[in-house]
Amino acid sequence: MKRPADPTREGTERIQAFSDGVFAIAITLLILDIHVPTLPANAPPHALARALVNQWPAYGAYIFTFVMIGIYWANHHYIFRLYVRTNHAFNLLNVLFLMCICFLPYPTAVVAQYFAAPSQQSAAVTLYAIGLLLPAATWLLCWLYATSRRRLIDKRLTQGFIRQMTVQFCASCAVYAVAIAVTQVSPGAGIAIALGLTLIYLLPPRPPEYAGSTVDAGAGRPS
Amino acid sequence: MKRPADPTREGTERIQAFSDGVFAIAITLLILDIHVPTLPANAPPHALARALVNQWPAYGAYIFTFVMIGIYWANHHYIFRLYVRTNHAFNLLNVLFLMCICFLPYPTAVVAQYFAAPSQQSAAVTLYAIGLLLPAATWLLCWLYATSRRRLIDKRLTQGFIRQMTVQFCASCAVYAVAIAVTQVSPGAGIAIALGLTLIYLLPPRPPEYAGSTVDAGAGRPS
Amino acid sequence: MKRPADPTREGTERIQAFSDGVFAIAITLLILDIHVPTLPANAPPHALARALVNQWPAYGAYIFTFVMIGIYWANHHYIFRLYVRTNHAFNLLNVLFLMCICFLPYPTAVVAQYFAAPSQQSAAVTLYAIGLLLPAATWLLCWLYATSRRRLIDKRLTQGFIRQMTVQFCASCAVYAVAIAVTQVSPGAGIAIALGLTLIYLLPPRPPEYAGSTVDAGAGRPS
Amino acid sequence: MKRPADPTREGTERIQAFSDGVFAIAITLLILDIHVPTLPANAPPHALARALVNQWPAYGAYIFTFVMIGIYWANHHYIFRLYVRTNHAFNLLNVLFLMCICFLPYPTAVVAQYFAAPSQQSAAVTLYAIGLLLPAATWLLCWLYATSRRRLIDKRLTQGFIRQMTVQFCASCAVYAVAIAVTQVSPGAGIAIALGLTLIYLLPPRPPEYAGSTVDAGAGRPS
Repeated sequence: MKRPADPTREGTERIQAFSDGVFAIAITLLILDIHVPTLPANAPPHALARALVNQWPAYGAYIFTFVMIGIYWANHHYIFRLYVRTNHAFNLLNVLFLMCICFLPYPTAVVAQYFAAPSQQSAAVTLYAIGLLLPAATWLLCWLYATSRRRLIDKRLTQGFIRQMTVQFCASCAVYAVAIAVTQVSPGAGIAIALGLTLIYLLPPRPPEYAGSTVDAGAGRPS
Repeated sequence: MKRPADPTREGTERIQAFSDGVFAIAITLLILDIHVPTLPANAPPHALARALVNQWPAYGAYIFTFVMIGIYWANHHYIFRLYVRTNHAFNLLNVLFLMCICFLPYPTAVVAQYFAAPSQQSAAVTLYAIGLLLPAATWLLCWLYATSRRRLIDKRLTQGFIRQMTVQFCASCAVYAVAIAVTQVSPGAGIAIALGLTLIYLLPPRPPEYAGSTVDAGAGRPS
Repeated sequence: MKRPADPTREGTERIQAFSDGVFAIAITLLILDIHVPTLPANAPPHALARALVNQWPAYGAYIFTFVMIGIYWANHHYIFRLYVRTNHAFNLLNVLFLMCICFLPYPTAVVAQYFAAPSQQSAAVTLYAIGLLLPAATWLLCWLYATSRRRLIDKRLTQGFIRQMTVQFCASCAVYAVAIAVTQVSPGAGIAIALGLTLIYLLPPRPPEYAGSTVDAGAGRPS
Repeated sequence: MKRPADPTREGTERIQAFSDGVFAIAITLLILDIHVPTLPANAPPHALARALVNQWPAYGAYIFTFVMIGIYWANHHYIFRLYVRTNHAFNLLNVLFLMCICFLPYPTAVVAQYFAAPSQQSAAVTLYAIGLLLPAATWLLCWLYATSRRRLIDKRLTQGFIRQMTVQFCASCAVYAVAIAVTQVSPGAGIAIALGLTLIYLLPPRPPEYAGSTVDAGAGRPS
């Protein structure tokens, strides 16, 4: 196989493998945010059972963030079928996106610990909603960079499809921003908005639309 | 290689790689649940030795859960030779299964800390048995989805083989459910049932049975 | 494919995969250094919000170290296009380099906790600057070993290119050493020097220069 | 590619990938055992600097265990060029070996915390030496299983080479057992023996010896 003259232009295999690793680790670390309850030595029977049940915000945050990262993994998987190559700047943008994914365990831990404390709930949920906005915003950034002047994407994709995706990703960011604002008034409503948006993303992603039906399979990608 | 028209229908390579990553991390995080004993500054000689020996429930829980996740890894390895493709819904079901695998360090930590406390032992063991039921139940869910109308499995597998596997996976779930019930009466007996079931899974999995001996190797799988 | 007579001489695939795994884990573990604030049960409203804002050194250290490891990942990616094979000694040198990468979460945690404490700031920043020098120094060591007598690198690279890279890697180590010294006088200035150097590394790496334009693509690498 | 009739007999790719993942994670988790010193709010200047220096046993344990796991990774890499296939029992033996590798962060943490406490040093070092014996013993077990009746190894390897390796692996276990015994009398001497053995393993592994010089490259391995 011929080595390309410029190794800074390259295929997406290693960026995908690295991202998959980061997704897998971030998703697995979430469990570390559920702490074993500490009981006094002379705790009555059923004290542990009660303490375990009282941890429901921690379980809820675990499940919700796990599903969130799982959806991002699936969508990352999907979108890298549209991106046909990468470059140094895009590698760094992807690192920025991964930084936001890796940040998620922290707001999850804060929500797990403070969601049930009425006076701190609002701050906890606000941080969580910010935590959800960050990967959505950097995801959009990656998309805009890759599609601007069709820099890194499959050249066969239709303009209409690209525009639809751009609208969708912008809309998601807007919804998370609204959720942050709503949280200031009602933490419960803010969480519900974010949860609802996530449920939509459980649906299968839109199949890509290619220009022409008898495409040249090699077009738009490096050999 | 021609790119398929619909990237949401795909091979199983990346789902396997992601799952392997999650298994590897979940299994390695277990050690974080064994805590270094804290001793007072003026502890007598042998205090550390005694504290280390007294941690036997933590070692036991570590070994048992490690073997458990190891067996799931080996079986995931095996079953993905039967699944010949994946889709969006199955990706999400697999994420659900992985969520239950990743949850295992938590009940392990609870058992490690409270197994030796008589009044809390029952709650700790119940949580652990629930922790064992969850991956078994989602594993079954994945299997039912993949085999229903032979959606994702190798079309050459015999109906009899598929039925045997379904029975086996249902039986495993039933045994874990029984273990949860028994734990309410006798935590030791509940653990023993779960341990016994695990020992059975140390045996090699059943070799798949294919219809006909001169099969078309490409049948039932995407090119 | 013929198995080479000596399995201690080999391609770089597995060393790259192992390094990618370590990079991915080290980068993801950083979030564990941001601790959920502990508040008294009767904390006033906004106590959590204030505590979260006061954690800015932890966020800063997280972002900076994340970008740092991300840059090392990208550069490791790049430089292994210049290294065409490995041997036992180089494997161990790479392990040494990875040991320094894996150490980074520790000084990050120390800076996160003590940067805002005036009397301890200097020690925290010194440790951090040492933490930055270590991977730079072992990176240089790997490079010197691999290029000395063109042991492991692509034989087609020009002598001038190799010299430029050697100078650049030595200069980076020197700058980090200067940052350590400056930190003794002014922690802020020391951090600024290290930060500045990092910003330079956000630029794309220098494209390699090969001797001759019509090279034999197979030269200098094992079949 | 034809699917083998029995998926429980297979190549070693996925077992290697899984093991690499576990090695990478176990080695990276070690840093979590170095804890940020806790200082009182009114600690004098240089209190942090002094606390960081006093952590030298933690740094030493980190470096030593990191090198240890790195050597095991390199040797695992090497030995899987001798193993040409795997089966269910060997997969489980490898899981057992990985369980002992993953255990290493725990004795490392115990040594880091108690090595400098004279009255507990002996117990800490004993646990560490046991922690070193366990992977050596399970490594030997894997080797004995794979080579017994040349079950899984490259059939072209000479009997003499296999015998030499068996002797070497048994000797390593014996040395660690001696180190455990010596530790009861002198912790320092016990550590020194284990350290010395590790230094020997920094040397490149013995090149395998194949019967005949014009071997059939495909012999002894599944197609």
